[in-house]
Amino acid sequence: MSYSLKAGGKRIRPLLLLATLKGYNKPFELGYSVACAIEMIHTYSLIHDDLPAMDDDDLRRGKATNHKVFGEAMAILAGDGLLTYSFNIISSLADVDAETKIKLIQNISEAAGPEGMVGGQVADMEGEGKPLSVEELQGIHHHKTGDLLAVSVKAGAILSGASDNEIELLGTFAKHLGIAFQIKDDILDVVGDEEALGKPVGSDEENDKSTYPSILGMDKAKEKLAYHLEEAKKSLYKVEIDHTLLKEIVEYIGNRSN
Amino acid sequence: MSYSLKAGGKRIRPLLLLATLKGYNKPFELGYSVACAIEMIHTYSLIHDDLPAMDDDDLRRGKATNHKVFGEAMAILAGDGLLTYSFNIISSLADVDAETKIKLIQNISEAAGPEGMVGGQVADMEGEGKPLSVEELQGIHHHKTGDLLAVSVKAGAILSGASDNEIELLGTFAKHLGIAFQIKDDILDVVGDEEALGKPVGSDEENDKSTYPSILGMDKAKEKLAYHLEEAKKSLYKVEIDHTLLKEIVEYIGNRSN
Repeated sequence: MSYSLKAGGKRIRPLLLLATLKGYNKPFELGYSVACAIEMIHTYSLIHDDLPAMDDDDLRRGKATNHKVFGEAMAILAGDGLLTYSFNIISSLADVDAETKIKLIQNISEAAGPEGMVGGQVADMEGEGKPLSVEELQGIHHHKTGDLLAVSVKAGAILSGASDNEIELLGTFAKHLGIAFQIKDDILDVVGDEEALGKPVGSDEENDKSTYPSILGMDKAKEKLAYHLEEAKKSLYKVEIDHTLLKEIVEYIGNRSN
Repeated sequence: MSYSLKAGGKRIRPLLLLATLKGYNKPFELGYSVACAIEMIHTYSLIHDDLPAMDDDDLRRGKATNHKVFGEAMAILAGDGLLTYSFNIISSLADVDAETKIKLIQNISEAAGPEGMVGGQVADMEGEGKPLSVEELQGIHHHKTGDLLAVSVKAGAILSGASDNEIELLGTFAKHLGIAFQIKDDILDVVGDEEALGKPVGSDEENDKSTYPSILGMDKAKEKLAYHLEEAKKSLYKVEIDHTLLKEIVEYIGNRSN
């Protein structure tokens, strides 16, 4: 559990949560535990995704994947442990009222579960080797990566006591951000720098995976990336909070090289 | 998810939860959702335990194991989905207040997580092929199976609004019951009927697993079984509730043939 958590990564989900808190002028400290819990869920999903039965990856974040170091059985259990412990952390928060904790658990378990991330992973696997339409691809990614990104922003809003309308708008913001994030991922898999990425370039093509560039071509994929970044900002600006940090994350996602 | 949930089994955890509710004169209906959630967690753990990287079992409850039917990747995801969804169910309970739901999630996630069931599974794997003392064996089973059995009883008490002292006593009751359950399991693996069990007899010995009969001998193992069933009843009788159903479960566990 510790090995994969400490293996680094962009920490984009914790950043989104903390940046949302900041938008509401709340202290970062308020969000540390939930941010960690969400990063633990993300990390568990990577450990299980990397398993031989799934994507069979040897490298993640530039380091040997969990099962390469600890064996498959321990990797499965490390993932199970991280997922379960994340809900223990949220339910044990000391300075948050029970209603808020339940709202967090409800949203996060939905985003991570069969109707969210796990469902997206199933759809992704079922789509492997088949030609997908851009709508199908977007549907997969919406759940596989988008839902957990979106709930990171929502969790920050829930912790800040935001209204349901604001939580909804910030969810739409994060949904577009999530699609943009995935398009950028696909683009980097074609044109990225292996060292900066910490994983082999071209693995999607090798695995016969449908990607935005493979379906739309590189130019249209870049256009679509720009479109969703714009839509993200539009939704963000509808919520009257300090947008500074969240806007910086939007820019970062558009410009990142790993 | 549905295949393994519907594959049958003893439903001992839901029974314990509902019998505890009944002890407090609460309606069974109050506990259905949490009982299902706990059974989902138990089922996820069986799906992952049966994987080739873990126990590599082809049969469970007399049916082909999940990965034998759906493949390893889907089995991993089915387990992940069941675990995550269980917390969604509990956090979404309509007629239970937020404080109670948080208490349930806190207790269940602890019992199922790295300090509970997952930790026990890790210890079990690390102990395979090594000679274990009876204390080590008990420590493993205490977490691997005991914690989730105990939290089933505790969840019934929490839903009934029991005092912390009562929850504690019922936890001790369930702890002894859990040890007894495991000793009986080990005994049945030696002397059981393959058809009644739905799995091959003698698989522990084949896997070179330490069991109560292998460490203590069959007679002492049976004595120890009787001891823990008695201790379970002693703790139970200290709580002033209707003991009828819980006592029946104690008898059932002592006498079961599968």
